[in-house]
Amino acid sequence: MRVIKIGVLGLGTVGSGVVRLLRDHQAKISSITGCQLEIKTIVVHNLTKQRNVDLAGIELTDQFEKVLHDPEIEVVVEVMGTVDTAKKYVEQLLRAGKHIITANKDLIATYGAELAELARENGCDLFYEASVAGGIPILRTIVNSFAADRIVEVKGIVNGTTNYILTQMSQQQVSFAAALKAAQNLGFAEPDPTNDVEGIDAAYKMVILTQFAFGMNISMKQLKIGGISDVKLADIQQAKELGYNIKLLGIAKLIEDQVDVSVGPVLVPKDQPLAAVQNENNAVLVTGAAVGETMFYGPGAGELPTANSVLSDIIAVTKDIVLKTTGSRFNDFQRDLKQARPADVCYSYYFSLKVKDQPGQMLKITQAMSEAQASFHLIIQSELDDQHARIVMTTHQMSEAQRNQVVAAFGALKDVEVVAAYKVLPE
Amino acid sequence: MRVIKIGVLGLGTVGSGVVRLLRDHQAKISSITGCQLEIKTIVVHNLTKQRNVDLAGIELTDQFEKVLHDPEIEVVVEVMGTVDTAKKYVEQLLRAGKHIITANKDLIATYGAELAELARENGCDLFYEASVAGGIPILRTIVNSFAADRIVEVKGIVNGTTNYILTQMSQQQVSFAAALKAAQNLGFAEPDPTNDVEGIDAAYKMVILTQFAFGMNISMKQLKIGGISDVKLADIQQAKELGYNIKLLGIAKLIEDQVDVSVGPVLVPKDQPLAAVQNENNAVLVTGAAVGETMFYGPGAGELPTANSVLSDIIAVTKDIVLKTTGSRFNDFQRDLKQARPADVCYSYYFSLKVKDQPGQMLKITQAMSEAQASFHLIIQSELDDQHARIVMTTHQMSEAQRNQVVAAFGALKDVEVVAAYKVLPE
Repeated sequence: MRVIKIGVLGLGTVGSGVVRLLRDHQAKISSITGCQLEIKTIVVHNLTKQRNVDLAGIELTDQFEKVLHDPEIEVVVEVMGTVDTAKKYVEQLLRAGKHIITANKDLIATYGAELAELARENGCDLFYEASVAGGIPILRTIVNSFAADRIVEVKGIVNGTTNYILTQMSQQQVSFAAALKAAQNLGFAEPDPTNDVEGIDAAYKMVILTQFAFGMNISMKQLKIGGISDVKLADIQQAKELGYNIKLLGIAKLIEDQVDVSVGPVLVPKDQPLAAVQNENNAVLVTGAAVGETMFYGPGAGELPTANSVLSDIIAVTKDIVLKTTGSRFNDFQRDLKQARPADVCYSYYFSLKVKDQPGQMLKITQAMSEAQASFHLIIQSELDDQHARIVMTTHQMSEAQRNQVVAAFGALKDVEVVAAYKVLPE
Repeated sequence: MRVIKIGVLGLGTVGSGVVRLLRDHQAKISSITGCQLEIKTIVVHNLTKQRNVDLAGIELTDQFEKVLHDPEIEVVVEVMGTVDTAKKYVEQLLRAGKHIITANKDLIATYGAELAELARENGCDLFYEASVAGGIPILRTIVNSFAADRIVEVKGIVNGTTNYILTQMSQQQVSFAAALKAAQNLGFAEPDPTNDVEGIDAAYKMVILTQFAFGMNISMKQLKIGGISDVKLADIQQAKELGYNIKLLGIAKLIEDQVDVSVGPVLVPKDQPLAAVQNENNAVLVTGAAVGETMFYGPGAGELPTANSVLSDIIAVTKDIVLKTTGSRFNDFQRDLKQARPADVCYSYYFSLKVKDQPGQMLKITQAMSEAQASFHLIIQSELDDQHARIVMTTHQMSEAQRNQVVAAFGALKDVEVVAAYKVLPE
């Protein structure tokens, strides 16, 4: 039986999972691929660290060159998790003709296009299923199963930490700060949670999903990114009364021949499948012109789910090696699309304002809406404290340009604070 | 550009969808495959029937031989929907070296193993993504993305008609008969709904899913099949009060080294993703030892969703033709597994009994449970009419052998009628 030798860069959570899964499912993998897959060498930072995974027969080294210059190693799994070093290593490995599998979303979102080109030039595969929504095989599904369709929208809960926090706020009636702390205690949030709670991690994933769904290269700078650190329990409860769950959604949407991509808190009607995705789970809803709405749900992170996605990539590379078909892009679909203009991106909105309780306030607010030619669906005013009222509005559809105008006008009013301005998905 | 010519058998809903999609997305498909895909010939029963799809450049014939003997045609799409004729045709086509794509679940569930073998012998591809859950790419996902994992359970809502009926019963508070009639008026149910409402259609799909998930060939005769025609509104409401939705589920479950496959009404806890699948939608929940729970949701039928799955198969065949890699099985995973014994299959149950209201009834019922060493979780007795009471029980886990013993004992009691005996999924 043909033996394929694998190098691994990094032995953290995902790396350990790959070692474990490959060992446990050796027989099944051999029966499918006709090959024996063996991890030969793992490059780590710290050679003396205790590892809780069986490394029998595997060489541990802190020398990257041991993998780079080993002609026996055909496939390299990059699970280090930095960007700059990872990029340098991956480039060298591709030039040396080694196939690459990575779970590094930052790397792919930032340098995916040029690395894919380098891989193609060197006849190498470059796969990264695990980089988006850990255990959900969303990228390969888009490539294989939507090839004949025209995707019109991809929206998803692609960050488990924020979904866990929002679920806990909603179910346990606690503040963002309390829910974050609970998430940190359980290991669902990092000690420095910025990347997750400010929507940055979700945005990296949306860059990759946009590339797969629309064939369009978009950079992080072009994305509109909002997080959840400002989301108030009161708004979660208010939304619930109106029939919505607030979720941190990434949305990439085709608007005629343009694409709009954003990340932020969104009101999702309770009876829609995305609204039911709880805790640390992820889900991606793909709308095809032909197929309609399909949703892919599962764990967004974790050692074994993510390692499973890495292994499906390894199996795909192995099949390509055997069939001598390596070197074609993970995603072949490329198009020149522009970003949609704010005047063309239309949603309904949920506005929540903190207002000093004095006569004439509602008039000024309705004037601001009216000047932007925006219209209400409903207005709810309630007492906030002795001196302040809370005014919540849901609106009819308006463009992003109108939305920006309204928010700016609210913000300019004396004694009015804009607490929330979230998109509302249609029923 | 290389041209791949396609023959189609049948021009009903799915056939028309294939013609339409292939025409609409010509450019995208060419950019991905590097080939031009052209439907050359369509075999129909009735040449004079009016068709509401553009057939310019396509030959319509009632002669199957026109496709069989045409050396230009490399790929044939079978969407006729019978079993015996389809089998005969597919066999002849495979022997003639033509690759086959079919949406025919009855054919594949019944003759899949021998057709796959014949395809392999002739170096042909045989794909049937559309045969299970129409627009959801579940088969190829299992093949590609669970190859390195060990699937322990596949359960799903794989029949849209019954899910529509159950959703309407639950939401509109109507009887099975009324909901069926509404479904028929909307075209969601056939004039003769037997195949759908008795669980047969779902069972065909479970045969195929079992083959993909566990590598095990099981025949329809080996399946335990229940339908929904006996499901009462009262039980749907009672289940709802207890926190469950009743769904027609197919369940294929690994129990040590054996597999249990069944189709029937099941109580699903409301906060689980399958419980939220409404109306004619389908969903398949795959549990992997490594990856955990993942769910794939989408339209289970319909012209364009099903045609989209056929087209992803056509694209897969085309890639294989170009790469000269045709002839490998759709699903390579084969194992010898046995069916689980009733003593080893354990679930909690929901029993609903109609009981003549007289002293001593509850004693006899609890005796029947006790004799089978089965135990209650809760019992609810309510008045049904002047002379009858309704007794609803949920139980702790018991084996299927115990369940059968209890149901037989209840049935043997005078003045007791077993209205429902449904599985209950754990929270």
